[in-house]
Amino acid sequence: METPDNATDAAAAADSATEAPTGIAAQDWATAAAEPTYRAAVVDLLGALAYGELAAFERLAEDAKLAPTLADKAELAKMASAEFHHFEQLTGRLAEIGAEPTEAMEPFVAALDGFHRQTAPSDWLEGLVKAYVGDSIASDFYREVAARLDSDTRELVLAVLDDTGHASFAVEKVRAAIEADPRVGGRLALWARRLMGEALSQSQRVVADRDALSTMLVGGVADGFDLAEVGRMFSRITEAHTKRMAALGLAA
Amino acid sequence: METPDNATDAAAAADSATEAPTGIAAQDWATAAAEPTYRAAVVDLLGALAYGELAAFERLAEDAKLAPTLADKAELAKMASAEFHHFEQLTGRLAEIGAEPTEAMEPFVAALDGFHRQTAPSDWLEGLVKAYVGDSIASDFYREVAARLDSDTRELVLAVLDDTGHASFAVEKVRAAIEADPRVGGRLALWARRLMGEALSQSQRVVADRDALSTMLVGGVADGFDLAEVGRMFSRITEAHTKRMAALGLAA
Repeated sequence: METPDNATDAAAAADSATEAPTGIAAQDWATAAAEPTYRAAVVDLLGALAYGELAAFERLAEDAKLAPTLADKAELAKMASAEFHHFEQLTGRLAEIGAEPTEAMEPFVAALDGFHRQTAPSDWLEGLVKAYVGDSIASDFYREVAARLDSDTRELVLAVLDDTGHASFAVEKVRAAIEADPRVGGRLALWARRLMGEALSQSQRVVADRDALSTMLVGGVADGFDLAEVGRMFSRITEAHTKRMAALGLAA
Repeated sequence: METPDNATDAAAAADSATEAPTGIAAQDWATAAAEPTYRAAVVDLLGALAYGELAAFERLAEDAKLAPTLADKAELAKMASAEFHHFEQLTGRLAEIGAEPTEAMEPFVAALDGFHRQTAPSDWLEGLVKAYVGDSIASDFYREVAARLDSDTRELVLAVLDDTGHASFAVEKVRAAIEADPRVGGRLALWARRLMGEALSQSQRVVADRDALSTMLVGGVADGFDLAEVGRMFSRITEAHTKRMAALGLAA
């Protein structure tokens, strides 16, 4: 779920928070969770992330069928399996803090299934671009949020966002395809824009529905976020997306 | 140990081989592989097993979509991930002995894809019965063959056949469904018969195509197998299938 060169801004945000943690970021889970709204927000976050991993597992396993060679198929199956292990870590953590994993995931099923239904890739390259774009955006977002979490939750969130190898695999394959046939680039650039639009629209749906999570994002409980800051966060994520697409040979 | 009399079932065959290994079963890989036909047969076997695991991964990931609950979906994803790790062990071993994993798997793609295409489950219960029947038959077969392999290959083959938890999960769910609606039993019994028929027909296709593997099975290189013994082996496997179906509440 990592991307090679995108995360400079997000990483900088995370770094500065790591250097001088204050408020919730300076607390461990036991201390921070004493505040029920914060606890609810973290259960939401872990539930969303867990179902995201399970949905990513399914998507990658499905895309493996489109693979042109056995080696490509094996590579996608490997990524799917890595997502599944993240899923296990996240549901394990939910159980550990006394939350029922299924209940925690349930509120995010509709949005994530909706996203995947609206953006079913029609071929192998669209699948690769989707894996790359989707994971990169998710990764940027969670890295931004991680900086505002208690130390224990932050550690888990950053661990499951570790590179599963999608990025370099997808980038290499997509670049080779564009080199072989430049017209492919135009089609995939349109596709990447559609993915970004659909991701934003589903995110808004989640933000509108989930009070605790949204409150945390706009600075109600976890410190450091206000509405202007949320706007800046979305700008950073969109900018990172644009840079990634350019690096891939696609105008975003 | 290769006298037919004491090979009453797969377990006995495997046990007696472990107790007093002779011929190839008493050798390690380095010694046994000096014979090129044996080496080719093992590459075939590992290739078939590896692609079987990759295909099982895909099938389980696909069936996860039919799961009635999030918990069931997670359970199937877990099994799929376990199959993938077996796939990694097998392709790792192929690479270790100097065989190209993709080339080793290629000859078995058509038969295994054909089996899965002919037996796409139409609902969640058919998927569970298929996972259970398919894995049990494959497991019986490989256990029979394992007794005739060199010690290093035998160890690997038995390790990847370890229970991934399919059996108890499937048995529990299928039993509960039949209890709730006994008519389900008749439908699933027919389905299990179709699976067995299709598995046998695809196995024959493989046996007819792959000289080295077939020669090993009928006693050309690895000792202990002759045509009559192969017949008995298929009887044992079919008998074990019948017992399993009865235990599941299905007349086979």
